[in-house]
Amino acid sequence: MTLGSASARPTSSRFPSAHSLTVGGRLFLIDCGEGCQMQMARFKVPFSRLDNIFISHLHGDHVFGLFGLISTLDMTGRLSPLHIYAPQGMQSLLDSISTQFGEVKYEVVLHTVKCSEPTLVAEFKNLEIYAFPLRHRIETYGYIFKEKEPQMNVVKSAIPEYKLTLEEIGTLKRGEDVIRKTDSGEDIVLKCEDLAYKPFEPRSFAYCSDTAPFPKLQEWIKGADLVYHEATYASDLRALSRSTAHSTSQDAAKAALAAGAKKLILGHFSSRYRSLDLLLDEAREIFPESYLAEEGTIFDVPEKRFPVK
Amino acid sequence: MTLGSASARPTSSRFPSAHSLTVGGRLFLIDCGEGCQMQMARFKVPFSRLDNIFISHLHGDHVFGLFGLISTLDMTGRLSPLHIYAPQGMQSLLDSISTQFGEVKYEVVLHTVKCSEPTLVAEFKNLEIYAFPLRHRIETYGYIFKEKEPQMNVVKSAIPEYKLTLEEIGTLKRGEDVIRKTDSGEDIVLKCEDLAYKPFEPRSFAYCSDTAPFPKLQEWIKGADLVYHEATYASDLRALSRSTAHSTSQDAAKAALAAGAKKLILGHFSSRYRSLDLLLDEAREIFPESYLAEEGTIFDVPEKRFPVK
Repeated sequence: MTLGSASARPTSSRFPSAHSLTVGGRLFLIDCGEGCQMQMARFKVPFSRLDNIFISHLHGDHVFGLFGLISTLDMTGRLSPLHIYAPQGMQSLLDSISTQFGEVKYEVVLHTVKCSEPTLVAEFKNLEIYAFPLRHRIETYGYIFKEKEPQMNVVKSAIPEYKLTLEEIGTLKRGEDVIRKTDSGEDIVLKCEDLAYKPFEPRSFAYCSDTAPFPKLQEWIKGADLVYHEATYASDLRALSRSTAHSTSQDAAKAALAAGAKKLILGHFSSRYRSLDLLLDEAREIFPESYLAEEGTIFDVPEKRFPVK
Repeated sequence: MTLGSASARPTSSRFPSAHSLTVGGRLFLIDCGEGCQMQMARFKVPFSRLDNIFISHLHGDHVFGLFGLISTLDMTGRLSPLHIYAPQGMQSLLDSISTQFGEVKYEVVLHTVKCSEPTLVAEFKNLEIYAFPLRHRIETYGYIFKEKEPQMNVVKSAIPEYKLTLEEIGTLKRGEDVIRKTDSGEDIVLKCEDLAYKPFEPRSFAYCSDTAPFPKLQEWIKGADLVYHEATYASDLRALSRSTAHSTSQDAAKAALAAGAKKLILGHFSSRYRSLDLLLDEAREIFPESYLAEEGTIFDVPEKRFPVK
């Protein structure tokens, strides 16, 4: 859910960058601009379920909401650790603030992100999160949230039909073929693709924060179901977008198209745009499945679950 | 205007402490909780007219909006200095943030407030601003904004009637009697109170931020036209208000009553109150002219101008 869609300067209706993401009951926050906690309250994002925050870079419009949020989480009686993934510099920033305002009662665990190509930075039961470098004025990372490849489901009728043992079922679940020896020593191969199927197709969400466009990006976010990409400007301000290391909505659309993404969310809009129609129109000319990140908007990526066999 | 009426933890509708004050075309900001700049944009408070910010204390819910605001003012192309009045500690806080995010192009002039009784901290053409200490967990100040006593107006008909000289008119404007010598050396006294009158009664606004109640406060804010006083809790949480160095709405009402204030604004409400009716009712039993600080509410203190004579 978009909690903030503004670029550096917020407007009367747009807050600085902040997004929540829910995957399988797990809540993530991606960037935390000023007012993030108020937007969480407004849109009923449950504070108690927040354990992991991913910060793209240390420009104020992506982190100034962190101090108040950390303090508010303390007031809710939180005791479990809060994990923050961010580029270097975050530690000294948090230190200077915590010195000023006192320590909180729970642990803030900082994971410093540093990489030059996609790198696994966090892993959960069904989910992996990779960071990848972006091209901005300071060290900046995007994040890709990928559901893990699921175990295969064995076709129910095959179990009695082939008298599959527990061990053989385990082999099929791992996606491997079952090989049986006949009494004469020959191999009988029970092919996984015949006896098992994927229960669902894993989904992925790529978050491309402040960045100038660059060719490698489309490889790194290849096939993402949902891509968030900054779109600070319309195409007439392309030169300005380059000098400030930002993108136009056309740049975002081109990246999504080249990556073979299913859907694109545009965000991080310059405060000069009262209406965002132009940015959306320019993106849709290139990539029709483009949408505007607007405060409170939820983009759902439905599970791609296959019928039970 | 109230920009934020919440205490430490904001809610879906209430932002942390921040208030704007306009006196004679001059704009002041008093406290600057997170999201202050978004509220300013929402309620059309003109960023370009902001030159002076008064901070009561360095708890996050009163200052976390400052970093984003300072940054946004830079993006508006501001070049004129921004004056911040705050207790000690603000400098190191601003330093640690500015090291992280780069310097702004205009000058931030910090005025460190330190006093044990009401002390003039800023003076403008028609206005004086005094700080006074409050009783909170950390060093905290209230502020009182006082219009200066005006020059007297001379009754128009008196000028020809008494053939007043320019010098004599100046004397009357200063509030002094005119003394003329007759040829025989006697004094003729032209009384100021007969020939001149106050054009208006100066107004005053007292801002009492986070504080436990204490007797001296009512002396310090004596006769204020408008008093803002924190009212974090209802009376049933009086014990909690004492242990956290806060006030109930009854405490606020008692202070306003004892000070002979004309009108009281209650603010800084605990997030536990969805409805604020109880806090308002309890205050009004003691001080009927009590009102709730609600986001976007403007409290106007009309000029008390006397008819031209």
